[in-house]
Amino acid sequence: MAVRHYTLDFSLSTAVDSASTVSGLMSIFHEQELTETVHDTNGHGYLATFVGKNGRVAILRVHSHGLVTIDLQCYEEDNIAQLDNLLNALEKKLKVLLNGNITRIKKLPAIVRGANVDRYWPTADGRLIEYDIDRVVYEEDSAYQNIKILHSQQYGNILVLDGDVNLAESDFAYTQAITGNGKENYAGKEVLILGGGDGGILAELVKQKPKMITMKVIDGCKMYMRKTCGNILDNLKGDCYQIFIEDCVPLLKKYVQEGRTFDYVINDLTAIPISTAPEEDSTWEFLRLILDLSIQVLHPSGNGNGSHYANLTEALSLYEDQLEKLSCPVGFCKEVVCVPSYLEQWVFYTAWKK
Amino acid sequence: MAVRHYTLDFSLSTAVDSASTVSGLMSIFHEQELTETVHDTNGHGYLATFVGKNGRVAILRVHSHGLVTIDLQCYEEDNIAQLDNLLNALEKKLKVLLNGNITRIKKLPAIVRGANVDRYWPTADGRLIEYDIDRVVYEEDSAYQNIKILHSQQYGNILVLDGDVNLAESDFAYTQAITGNGKENYAGKEVLILGGGDGGILAELVKQKPKMITMKVIDGCKMYMRKTCGNILDNLKGDCYQIFIEDCVPLLKKYVQEGRTFDYVINDLTAIPISTAPEEDSTWEFLRLILDLSIQVLHPSGNGNGSHYANLTEALSLYEDQLEKLSCPVGFCKEVVCVPSYLEQWVFYTAWKK
Repeated sequence: MAVRHYTLDFSLSTAVDSASTVSGLMSIFHEQELTETVHDTNGHGYLATFVGKNGRVAILRVHSHGLVTIDLQCYEEDNIAQLDNLLNALEKKLKVLLNGNITRIKKLPAIVRGANVDRYWPTADGRLIEYDIDRVVYEEDSAYQNIKILHSQQYGNILVLDGDVNLAESDFAYTQAITGNGKENYAGKEVLILGGGDGGILAELVKQKPKMITMKVIDGCKMYMRKTCGNILDNLKGDCYQIFIEDCVPLLKKYVQEGRTFDYVINDLTAIPISTAPEEDSTWEFLRLILDLSIQVLHPSGNGNGSHYANLTEALSLYEDQLEKLSCPVGFCKEVVCVPSYLEQWVFYTAWKK
Repeated sequence: MAVRHYTLDFSLSTAVDSASTVSGLMSIFHEQELTETVHDTNGHGYLATFVGKNGRVAILRVHSHGLVTIDLQCYEEDNIAQLDNLLNALEKKLKVLLNGNITRIKKLPAIVRGANVDRYWPTADGRLIEYDIDRVVYEEDSAYQNIKILHSQQYGNILVLDGDVNLAESDFAYTQAITGNGKENYAGKEVLILGGGDGGILAELVKQKPKMITMKVIDGCKMYMRKTCGNILDNLKGDCYQIFIEDCVPLLKKYVQEGRTFDYVINDLTAIPISTAPEEDSTWEFLRLILDLSIQVLHPSGNGNGSHYANLTEALSLYEDQLEKLSCPVGFCKEVVCVPSYLEQWVFYTAWKK
């Protein structure tokens, strides 16, 4: 049984007398059978809690510097129309009481707390985002991460790894960008994909008949991300590809030792790669290790190393710092791409041996 | 002085004894000098309000059906690290107290209420979205609407009309889609743009040398949306365009009377067009009026009538109902497009006389 949490805020140009504001609202709360407790705030304005029937709770604060905030919580199956009426009545009355002093009225969409289906998945830069998710399609804990596939009306099935939106069926733009937007020719080439567990890159590249190796398939994608992967994950081995289900770091180290090289290394790991080794506890250290191993297995005449990062100025500059610290000098370029389900701009890097 | 509002929710597989849960948390609240008031909820679980120094307020609810919610409010300039510690301590303690019974822990990014710069702009389908907006560039009330231009780090300047995100400098995909994605040839054609006040469509189409008319320039865009409009709005009249600053309905009616036709009519009005005439009070009626007038001024051999709508199944079906009710039979097709700053998929319609 989820809780709906409404907020209604009035920003004011000057401080207000809380006594007259509060007394003007009391009749509305009382009509709805809400009983108040007024709290002592030690001089930080007026604060009252109102408790009503069916578990309804309201909180009214008149902040001393010119802000009125109202919180209203009720259960999902409560009479929502009645609560809308209550909020509208409070808004209407406050408009009259604070007339001429209002700089902004803000009523956010209700936040639903404790629902069976969680719709709130923040962006990589920590902003609050509500998705139009209506059901959980798949959920498992693998040895590496928590895997969820959630259905959205507009994005199709969305793969969420450890709480990060990874890829949705709407996101062909991601696969296009990370494979070079059609500017690369993979025919007959040796390609290494790090990550790529949703099968999108693999499904796209096999059309060009390369020799290919990939690691770590994510269970569930084969069944529930078919618009992304097609039937490519149905077999772990095909004419021009082979899927290894193992940690990428030991495999990369083995390739370095063997002197094996690739024409393309596509880094499709999560924005913050997961380390399974305790000694690599710093995220940036671990990211650099992967970048370094990747550049080592990249053929000198090879065309690049696709990678990606969220559009955070600070994170991008830290990422570029790592590129400068690799065991051989690299050049790089980057591109900003809009991936539909990400709800933030994404940056794709291509790097090469100088 | 804005308020930061934190939430921390534990969803549980079964109901819990509130007494033991609450008593396990009390020492944490008391350490932070928060003083509790326990409320009578008429059998709807445990509810306590905690008031502390500097205007801090916390609300703890142990719902009887297996959900624990915590709200924590403080002022923006409070010691945020201290509040993070408090939340982390509560989370850690609850993990121990509710061990084995937890199905989800959810801590949303703090909601900032009453800030000078408002970052919360819901989507057309009413979802809560926080943008990375860092300043207000322009704000005015015109005769038609409230106009804001807000700066986002990733989208550039964003035009917001009556609270709806209209277009950002990142959104060339919008201009491309509404002009037919390069499939139309505007050279020498008569084009009518309804809306288009940001100048983006105009700036794009003049490159093809059509004869063109547009209405309603939005003040501020000329100065602050230059990545979108270039210098096209600096003059109201050019070699192949003319800008009328007036209501589009009377102008369309005049064109119908005169029998004037256009090769293209591009409908770039807001998703919910604004009626200035009181008799047209139903949104869908008014939308149909505009569609009907548009189709009437469209040349029979003319190529279409670009229009757009948010990706709401119900709204799209209502929109298509309107297309069936026009004064002449029309055909239509549609396309889903990702416009970066919208944070929802958008649908573009092309309609023509059958």
